[in-house]
Amino acid sequence: MEKCKIIFQPEGKRGEFPPGTTILDAAREIGVDIEAICGGKLTCGKCQVVIEQGEENLSQMTEDERRLLDKRKAGKNYRLACVTRFYGDVVVFVPEESRGGEQIILKEGVEVSVTIDPAVKKYYLELPKPHLKDDLGDFERILNALREDYGIENVDIDYEVLKKLPDVLRESDWKVTVTIWNDREIIDVEPGYKAENVYGLAVDIGTTTVVGYLTDLRTGKILAIDSMMNPQVPYGEDVMSRITYAMQNPEGLEVLNKKIVEGINQILVNVCKEAGIKPEEVSEVTIVGNTAMHHIFLKIDPQYLAVAPYVPAIHRSHDVKARDIGIKIAKGGNVHVLPIEAGWVGADNVAVLIATEPYKRDEMCLVIDIGTNGEIVLGNRERLLSCSAAAGPALEGAHIKHGMRAATGAIERIRIDPETFEPEYKTIGNAPPRGICGSGIIDAAAELYRVGIVKKNGRFNLDLDTPRVRVVDGQPEYVIAWANETAIGHDIVITQKDIREIQLAKGAMCAGAHILMKEMGVESVDRVIVAGAFGNYIDKISALIIGLVPDVPVDRIESVGNAAGVGARLALISREKRREANEIARKVEHIKLAVHPDFEREFSMAMYFPHMDKKRYPRHEEVLKVRGAE
Amino acid sequence: MEKCKIIFQPEGKRGEFPPGTTILDAAREIGVDIEAICGGKLTCGKCQVVIEQGEENLSQMTEDERRLLDKRKAGKNYRLACVTRFYGDVVVFVPEESRGGEQIILKEGVEVSVTIDPAVKKYYLELPKPHLKDDLGDFERILNALREDYGIENVDIDYEVLKKLPDVLRESDWKVTVTIWNDREIIDVEPGYKAENVYGLAVDIGTTTVVGYLTDLRTGKILAIDSMMNPQVPYGEDVMSRITYAMQNPEGLEVLNKKIVEGINQILVNVCKEAGIKPEEVSEVTIVGNTAMHHIFLKIDPQYLAVAPYVPAIHRSHDVKARDIGIKIAKGGNVHVLPIEAGWVGADNVAVLIATEPYKRDEMCLVIDIGTNGEIVLGNRERLLSCSAAAGPALEGAHIKHGMRAATGAIERIRIDPETFEPEYKTIGNAPPRGICGSGIIDAAAELYRVGIVKKNGRFNLDLDTPRVRVVDGQPEYVIAWANETAIGHDIVITQKDIREIQLAKGAMCAGAHILMKEMGVESVDRVIVAGAFGNYIDKISALIIGLVPDVPVDRIESVGNAAGVGARLALISREKRREANEIARKVEHIKLAVHPDFEREFSMAMYFPHMDKKRYPRHEEVLKVRGAE
Repeated sequence: MEKCKIIFQPEGKRGEFPPGTTILDAAREIGVDIEAICGGKLTCGKCQVVIEQGEENLSQMTEDERRLLDKRKAGKNYRLACVTRFYGDVVVFVPEESRGGEQIILKEGVEVSVTIDPAVKKYYLELPKPHLKDDLGDFERILNALREDYGIENVDIDYEVLKKLPDVLRESDWKVTVTIWNDREIIDVEPGYKAENVYGLAVDIGTTTVVGYLTDLRTGKILAIDSMMNPQVPYGEDVMSRITYAMQNPEGLEVLNKKIVEGINQILVNVCKEAGIKPEEVSEVTIVGNTAMHHIFLKIDPQYLAVAPYVPAIHRSHDVKARDIGIKIAKGGNVHVLPIEAGWVGADNVAVLIATEPYKRDEMCLVIDIGTNGEIVLGNRERLLSCSAAAGPALEGAHIKHGMRAATGAIERIRIDPETFEPEYKTIGNAPPRGICGSGIIDAAAELYRVGIVKKNGRFNLDLDTPRVRVVDGQPEYVIAWANETAIGHDIVITQKDIREIQLAKGAMCAGAHILMKEMGVESVDRVIVAGAFGNYIDKISALIIGLVPDVPVDRIESVGNAAGVGARLALISREKRREANEIARKVEHIKLAVHPDFEREFSMAMYFPHMDKKRYPRHEEVLKVRGAE
Repeated sequence: MEKCKIIFQPEGKRGEFPPGTTILDAAREIGVDIEAICGGKLTCGKCQVVIEQGEENLSQMTEDERRLLDKRKAGKNYRLACVTRFYGDVVVFVPEESRGGEQIILKEGVEVSVTIDPAVKKYYLELPKPHLKDDLGDFERILNALREDYGIENVDIDYEVLKKLPDVLRESDWKVTVTIWNDREIIDVEPGYKAENVYGLAVDIGTTTVVGYLTDLRTGKILAIDSMMNPQVPYGEDVMSRITYAMQNPEGLEVLNKKIVEGINQILVNVCKEAGIKPEEVSEVTIVGNTAMHHIFLKIDPQYLAVAPYVPAIHRSHDVKARDIGIKIAKGGNVHVLPIEAGWVGADNVAVLIATEPYKRDEMCLVIDIGTNGEIVLGNRERLLSCSAAAGPALEGAHIKHGMRAATGAIERIRIDPETFEPEYKTIGNAPPRGICGSGIIDAAAELYRVGIVKKNGRFNLDLDTPRVRVVDGQPEYVIAWANETAIGHDIVITQKDIREIQLAKGAMCAGAHILMKEMGVESVDRVIVAGAFGNYIDKISALIIGLVPDVPVDRIESVGNAAGVGARLALISREKRREANEIARKVEHIKLAVHPDFEREFSMAMYFPHMDKKRYPRHEEVLKVRGAE
């Protein structure tokens, strides 16, 4: 039999096939990636291609095909690859939007390029109905269709899905969408065509703040975000006190675990409501968090994390049925917990790494993830060092008299006039102020220090002639907003104690950074990436002024927002990123700050603004001038 | 470096190794199977070998090694392969008891030879304790040890095991036994050396009777058996009425499922108590049962089994976490449900097949599994046909006036004097009679027919001169035991209605067998294998007399007891048998009796003793004579 030539552009791949082959089958055989999520069932219309030559050699267009082609495209040599057969030589162009494995660039804070390849994928099937001569079992019927329509073999089925399978098949008249996890297991079956509705939830469990991102797994787009105070906070504000709570109370771990699971379920309900879908339509959850949050979420006793040699129960990523943990997504769905690096450097840091990719760079990068348990990584493609610093929750707005989460009415930006000491501030949503969020707290410290209200050792200067600086109950404070300007009916202030909390936080982070630099044998870094889950990007110059980061030119600092959350989302949409996470988690060398001989000294020096050792901040005067000239 | 030769006898395998290699490592490299279940930890002492030549080239025997060698063996050239190193050429003999992969022969009813290779295996590990320079995670520490000590790679860990892992490791001083399922997943971790305690429960869920066999997975031996009336019986005595119950009651499936799960848990508790182990020490459960029992156990809606085209939810074998079903073995343990053949031929029949292996035979075999839902297979290595027959529970003692399960006091054997019509009977445990079990019921029918008390159409002959035959409330009956002989204080009888029930049961089974013979195109069979879960082996001659089985020479009948239970046990101890089960389940061709054009006619003819069509039982007179001469 004579064969027909087909050439696919722009790749130029070609092959020969028997007359009557569909364009899609030819593409698959040659290895040209054309998206066809309905499996050639004339439902999705994704496989539109342009016929460049040989239109006369094609099967006739049917009404169904014409209906699915965009109006703009119908009549313009566009055809659907799944149903169009060729009976002579043809040249076919595959447009960008019809190509599978789309490359996308996430651009929230960090810019990271990734090929969409989620662990969870959906496939639409139209099954032959059984009859007396074809009494194959329901599951085997699905396996046959998966093999025939999509070339998928060797998949298992989750028990919860098997239970509902017979009813769903018959109620949907044998037209269903199956969800497959990791090419390995059917984790859902839904009636009808749902192949374009693929959702995941990325969760960043911070010690103080929990954020969830409902994500479209086919595009990587965020459909809704929700955040909340970590509901474990009442049981201990930092990691150590929660571990202590878990150890000292017979039901301690139980309680903490229940709180975070309920919290995530609440976020799940909120984001789904906002996006107009049902929680059980969410197919997978990714989780990042520090080691203690990781263990408590998994209901693993965290006590051994708190004592030398600080050994976690598991390093690598782990998949658990959501139902075994109590997360209420699809019954067969999984929770993917990202890997952790060491006893004190957790999955949140791994997530920051896969979002910021220092291991792909030549320049020496310092990645600082500010949080109650701050995590720091220094390195490049050659070597990576990490440590974690108990910074406390000050920069997330906790332990600060008028601190608050980044929400409407939070003061997020402050400038103080060096002559009059009068402030200017900006609130989220431009609402009357209710408190100060993380970026505002860093701004406040930087400005109070810059204008001389706070000295480099952190003490208030009480000799200034301004009503904004005062002493209440023996404690100095600075009034940012008078009561009549606010939404809360009293003055919003930054106190001496607040400044101390900020010093502790920035001192811990800064000391960690300098110890890593010493361990790496470098005196400066090429780039600083500042991440953090406090809702808003921090001001780079303020960060430099107080010495939260080492001395670098301002344009070498990137403030990337919640990179841990970005990492969690990347793990949702890219299996390559999951592999990268496991590799990087093994590769990073972890420095234990708590037992490092230099830590105490570095910490006490780093408490100063910007640092007790002025030589380490040669650009400091220049930075102050830049701010003054703003 | 010079290498040392080692030869392993009796296989004669040989190799060369660097001086100082252990005998066990050399054996593993060459592929000689030596059992060493403690992984060379000087704990199990299983790896004893005999040194035939080169004793002078071995490492010195330590006190620990001497302690582990049998007293009989110490000093007789026996050494432990795991710790003995060779520094020159040696010849080593591996005795039978030290060889891995032991071949055993099960001999309860059926004789089947199988190599022990359970899905669940245990490995003893002594882990290096973590310290500041070795802070590897707990799970990774186990993975390293599994790789180093046993060459096992790529195993995952069940979530429930991960949760307890940190505590178990530290409480056991890092000496633990891990249980691995299918070389794939760690499903348990126990403190200390437990590598020789590997248990499984094989369960046969019959419509009327449920039997559980607690099995030692290292030897295949039964440690305890328990059986009970299927607790679903109050909701319907046969498969159809239970399916109807599930369909017509909103919580019907829920209730039936809960009953059987509770029943199996009760059996689990009973057998574990008898064997002196805890239920959570049981690592796996295998389940066989007809298709409806299979679906209800898995909580899958069975309604589609009851209507054409009788399609099951799944054919192949399936593994489910026991906790997802509610079976209370080890938290990470699995339930392995054997495959089913078709809508009406279930995993129980597959189990009977792997126990009796007709597919390995040349002779034409008929395998009859008597049960409420009786299943019949005809064939050999060329071809296999199956059908299922709704026999009813008569032969299990239900629907029979004085029927009972095979338990102490059950009449299991009956002979009637053809002159005096006086019976002789034997009870289980030789206790005063309480009722009649399956084998006794078949005997009663055969003897009543043989001596002329019951005619070939099943009617009582009331013209005989014996007080044992009487009419009560209009119904004829025969008294087997007078009240004063019994433990129940009244006469034990077989009634006209009982005979009718027996006729229905034997008629259905016999009709099924004849239809399969016709479909296969054979007029006789070479061998008949009669299986059934009614506790005791049925009498072959009685079975021939009433025509429960087709006409064959008596010595061609095997009565093998509960072969389905044997199959369930085989699946527990042999992964090869699991593969065989899936293959055979696909291979068997299923004949649907209910819609077969000949069924009604065959059934009505087969209700006669032995059959309405005398030509099909040419040996009948001879068989009666054999019985008479006993």
